[in-house]
Amino acid sequence: MTDTAAAKTAVTPATHTTPPARFSHGVRKGNILQVAGQVGFGPAVAGRPPTPVGPGLREQTLQTLENVASVLEEGGASWEDAVMVRVYLTDTDHFAEFNAVYDEYFTDRVTVPAARTTVYVGLPAGLLVEIDALAVLD
Amino acid sequence: MTDTAAAKTAVTPATHTTPPARFSHGVRKGNILQVAGQVGFGPAVAGRPPTPVGPGLREQTLQTLENVASVLEEGGASWEDAVMVRVYLTDTDHFAEFNAVYDEYFTDRVTVPAARTTVYVGLPAGLLVEIDALAVLD
Amino acid sequence: MTDTAAAKTAVTPATHTTPPARFSHGVRKGNILQVAGQVGFGPAVAGRPPTPVGPGLREQTLQTLENVASVLEEGGASWEDAVMVRVYLTDTDHFAEFNAVYDEYFTDRVTVPAARTTVYVGLPAGLLVEIDALAVLD
Repeated sequence: MTDTAAAKTAVTPATHTTPPARFSHGVRKGNILQVAGQVGFGPAVAGRPPTPVGPGLREQTLQTLENVASVLEEGGASWEDAVMVRVYLTDTDHFAEFNAVYDEYFTDRVTVPAARTTVYVGLPAGLLVEIDALAVLD
Repeated sequence: MTDTAAAKTAVTPATHTTPPARFSHGVRKGNILQVAGQVGFGPAVAGRPPTPVGPGLREQTLQTLENVASVLEEGGASWEDAVMVRVYLTDTDHFAEFNAVYDEYFTDRVTVPAARTTVYVGLPAGLLVEIDALAVLD
Repeated sequence: MTDTAAAKTAVTPATHTTPPARFSHGVRKGNILQVAGQVGFGPAVAGRPPTPVGPGLREQTLQTLENVASVLEEGGASWEDAVMVRVYLTDTDHFAEFNAVYDEYFTDRVTVPAARTTVYVGLPAGLLVEIDALAVLD
C-alpha cells in the first residue's frame, strides 16, 4: 500500500460510549466512511451505562441523528457526504412522526438528501430507533 | 474538490412518486450509486398517493425490481453494476416464491449476480417486499 | 472499461453451498468487496441440502463468521479490510452471548474493528444469526 489515504482508521467521537463489543462507531478507509448503527444514547458519562435520552421517538430520533453526525464529523465528513441512511424503527405506526422529525432535522443540513431504507425490526428494550449511514468523501 | 466526478447527485426517475421524507430515491457520488429502499408502487400518478401494483408477492416483487432498475438506469448504471441487493420480506414462507420470481427476473439481465442479504421484517400495511441496492460504476 | 481493476467478479468459496437464487456469495468490483448474508451452514456436502452446524447461537455464530471470512479471503481481502459488519439476530436476549462470541472471535484477528449494526429480525427456521460485510481493499 503506497497510498496512505487507503489506511483503515477507527472513528471514535469523544462523546460516544464504548461499544458493547469489538466494533468501531465509525470506520474510514480511502474515501469510504461507514457509520455503525447509532441509537439515542446521550453523551457518555464515566461510570454510567449508556442511557437513551428519553422514552419518546422524537427525542431518540434527534439524538440518534446527532450521534451519526458526530461520527461523520469525526471522520472528516458531513451529512452532505452521506449517500445512504438506514433507519430501523420498531413500529410501523411511528413512520409519520419519524419522517416529520427527520425532515425537520435535515432542513438546512443537506442540499442533496441521502438515499434511505426504513424497515421495522426488534431493538433492545427502551430503544425505538437505530440509524446507520454510509458516506463517500470527496 | 477538483474532480467533478465526485459530486453528489440525487437520482430521481420520472416514474417515481415523491419520497415521503427528505431522502433521495438514489444518490450517486463518484463511482458509488446507492438505491434507496424501493417497494412495489406503480408509476407515479399526479394527485394520487403511491399505491402497490397488487396484493400479491409476485407482482410486488417484479415492480420493486423494476423500480430499483429505474434508479440504477437514471444514475447511469445497470444491474451489471450492482454489487449488493438487500431484500426485506415479511414472511419466511415467501422465500421460495420470491426466489423463483427473482431468478426469473434476472435471467438474461446479469452475467455476475450481485450479492444478496434477505431478512424478514415488518413493513407498512399492504407491502410484502422492499429492496435496495448498491452499485459500483466502472 | 479500460481499467480491468473495475471488472465485477463473483466470489465463490469452494466450501460454500450453492446460493438458493441468482445471487453471489460475494462480489468484487474495483476496491469494493461485498459479502452476501452468511448463515451457520457447515461446508457444502455434495447431494445434501445446506445444514446449520448446530442449534446453538455460539456454534452458528462462529461458523457464520468463518463463512464471511471465506468470502473475504476468496476475494483477496481479510477482516482487516472490512469496514462494516451487519448482524441479524432473532432475539434481543441473544445480544450479550453473541457479543461474547464476537469478541472472542475477533481477538487477534483485527487491529481496527469494523463498524457494526445489529438488529433483530425473522430468519428461516433453525437459523439464529445472519451476517454480511462490506470490505474496502487497499
